[in-house]
Amino acid sequence: MRRPIMGLLSDFGLRDPYVAEMKAVILSICPDAQIVDISHEIESFDVRMGAFVLASALPYFPNDTVYVAVVDPGVGTNRRPIVVQTKRSLIVGPDNGLSMLAAEKEGLKHIYKITETAFMLQKVSKTFQGRDIFAPVAARLAEGRLPSEIGPELNDYLIPKYAKPAITNGTLTGEVMHIDHFGNIITNLSEENLNTICAKQNTLLQIALEGQVLRTRYCSAYGEVQTGEVLAVIGGHGFLEIAINRGDAAEKLRAKADMKVKINVA
Amino acid sequence: MRRPIMGLLSDFGLRDPYVAEMKAVILSICPDAQIVDISHEIESFDVRMGAFVLASALPYFPNDTVYVAVVDPGVGTNRRPIVVQTKRSLIVGPDNGLSMLAAEKEGLKHIYKITETAFMLQKVSKTFQGRDIFAPVAARLAEGRLPSEIGPELNDYLIPKYAKPAITNGTLTGEVMHIDHFGNIITNLSEENLNTICAKQNTLLQIALEGQVLRTRYCSAYGEVQTGEVLAVIGGHGFLEIAINRGDAAEKLRAKADMKVKINVA
Amino acid sequence: MRRPIMGLLSDFGLRDPYVAEMKAVILSICPDAQIVDISHEIESFDVRMGAFVLASALPYFPNDTVYVAVVDPGVGTNRRPIVVQTKRSLIVGPDNGLSMLAAEKEGLKHIYKITETAFMLQKVSKTFQGRDIFAPVAARLAEGRLPSEIGPELNDYLIPKYAKPAITNGTLTGEVMHIDHFGNIITNLSEENLNTICAKQNTLLQIALEGQVLRTRYCSAYGEVQTGEVLAVIGGHGFLEIAINRGDAAEKLRAKADMKVKINVA
Repeated sequence: MRRPIMGLLSDFGLRDPYVAEMKAVILSICPDAQIVDISHEIESFDVRMGAFVLASALPYFPNDTVYVAVVDPGVGTNRRPIVVQTKRSLIVGPDNGLSMLAAEKEGLKHIYKITETAFMLQKVSKTFQGRDIFAPVAARLAEGRLPSEIGPELNDYLIPKYAKPAITNGTLTGEVMHIDHFGNIITNLSEENLNTICAKQNTLLQIALEGQVLRTRYCSAYGEVQTGEVLAVIGGHGFLEIAINRGDAAEKLRAKADMKVKINVA
Repeated sequence: MRRPIMGLLSDFGLRDPYVAEMKAVILSICPDAQIVDISHEIESFDVRMGAFVLASALPYFPNDTVYVAVVDPGVGTNRRPIVVQTKRSLIVGPDNGLSMLAAEKEGLKHIYKITETAFMLQKVSKTFQGRDIFAPVAARLAEGRLPSEIGPELNDYLIPKYAKPAITNGTLTGEVMHIDHFGNIITNLSEENLNTICAKQNTLLQIALEGQVLRTRYCSAYGEVQTGEVLAVIGGHGFLEIAINRGDAAEKLRAKADMKVKINVA
Repeated sequence: MRRPIMGLLSDFGLRDPYVAEMKAVILSICPDAQIVDISHEIESFDVRMGAFVLASALPYFPNDTVYVAVVDPGVGTNRRPIVVQTKRSLIVGPDNGLSMLAAEKEGLKHIYKITETAFMLQKVSKTFQGRDIFAPVAARLAEGRLPSEIGPELNDYLIPKYAKPAITNGTLTGEVMHIDHFGNIITNLSEENLNTICAKQNTLLQIALEGQVLRTRYCSAYGEVQTGEVLAVIGGHGFLEIAINRGDAAEKLRAKADMKVKINVA
């Protein structure tokens, strides 16, 4: 049988022992797990960034991967610990919307509330449920236990509402979803959205990013403009990015997540 | 047989090839090793932070895990390379106190000085013994070699002396042991220490942190106070933390490791 | 059969889902791969730093390791995707010189241009070929496919020209190749180069680092000088480092990669 693959995402950083403790708990239960770190550098408590990064990575994992996703400002309060079952995978974490963007993409099947204490560590702290609840539950699921054994099905889970792209009079309106490590400004506007305003590769786009207005070429690769020049490009996850060839667009344009973006064919 | 589990801790960071070289050496000797990074972001040369992070993570690993722990300002000098055998695991690294906090927790059995060159890389540099001595020795131990084969037993190893919590006239005195990634201020005061001054959940504590005096609720979860409010809470490793709900307490209170902390019931 | 070992290097950082997506693609094809991160914190687009870190790490990996090395400012343009076959390993990445320092060290055998689309992901983006081309090709090579199946052999690949050390009238001239996490200033001058000017352990060296002139002892370990003192030492990869015992030499001496270094016996 294939070794179970597990994906981990959190805002724990890599300095402290927290991520290692989750892995140690997982390997104590499921020693054959192949664990992949998705990211542990989600901004502290930033559920939306976590949701975006998780939803970006999931399509590339094989079927039956089990994820532990923990960005959990409400740890230890009455927010519920859940297992989200999609058409191809299981996501274990808090009921705060973190996993719902990924679940919608994969097709949501069921959500279970984690109540069965036999699946948790013996001693459960109120400050670190990633280690004490989510990791051991996920490891047992990776070992073959069924999500329905973990607790009762839920129907009233939290679905975050993020602004959807809109088109008015040929203007596409969206927002900045994520600034990546290179400083690429990733919006929530897809290639399909750009098609609706008849933006074609190589034409000029007028982009309003909060106060600033830019005119940039709509390219298909970063290297199609000169070094240091701004461009617009569909990135590796299918969303429009505002980028600088070999440069940091977010720094230069002082862009941040959640900023409004308006796009016209110039 | 279960794949051997190995835990790695260092102050090498993740930018340079150092950690990968240790892993490459380990896998060359023990290709089935399941390697878990505990942390490689210990502050440079900070043996105490390394000792704390190592001792925090160890209880969650299975029995017979082999650790390589390297925070080693004295590399290449006459400080000795050692293998620490506890009741449940083996820790390979320098004799500078780094592993002794963990060893005391697990129960120390024996300490061996590493002298057997057949267990090391053929060429041993004086600047990178993590790769040339500790990693290959640990990999051979993970493969089943005995610590007593590595060299002679030692009885004069280094035990670091950290301040122990003290109680005088109802005042508990300790110190800041660690600032975590979220900015939580982790002290060396345990739940038992707080019981001795009759601190009860939900009561007010008066906390003196070097010059500053705070009055905060003694909570059981971060979310029990308003966003941005300071609280005291027993963290995931059983020690009192001074934290801010969804905020960075260390930044706000300008706290650092080693600061004195005094606590009274308010 | 031994599990295939794969090494990953990039300038993607660990914040975004990029590295995890490459790993997910690899494990989808080759579920038994033992993946080792060499570094994902190469400075953005810094091919030379990537080449140095890759060449440093490779000697410690076992034979037949397959590497994915992606520092790729030209992604999506007409720079070619290649497989570099050395005497002991395979390196998959862009034809921009990144892998040639390592390949020269191991002994270059063949270079193939990646053209066979059956080895790539079905949908290949022009912005993230690490995931869409390099990772799946490398995973198939790790599974046992031959590099010659990937595409035609190339004879006109890019070899970067870095300054070689020179000796004039007893002065050794080189440059700073890398600043590591500790602030050690790593030059391209080897122990052999130092032998040619008759520098002996424990003698004084006069080192000119751009404007500054230093006199430092030529040591064999960092701890041979007092804490805070500058020293010269052959580091773990055989190159001369200018370092400070328990300190950050690059910060103190304001050193950067590419600076000129001139060395005399003082």
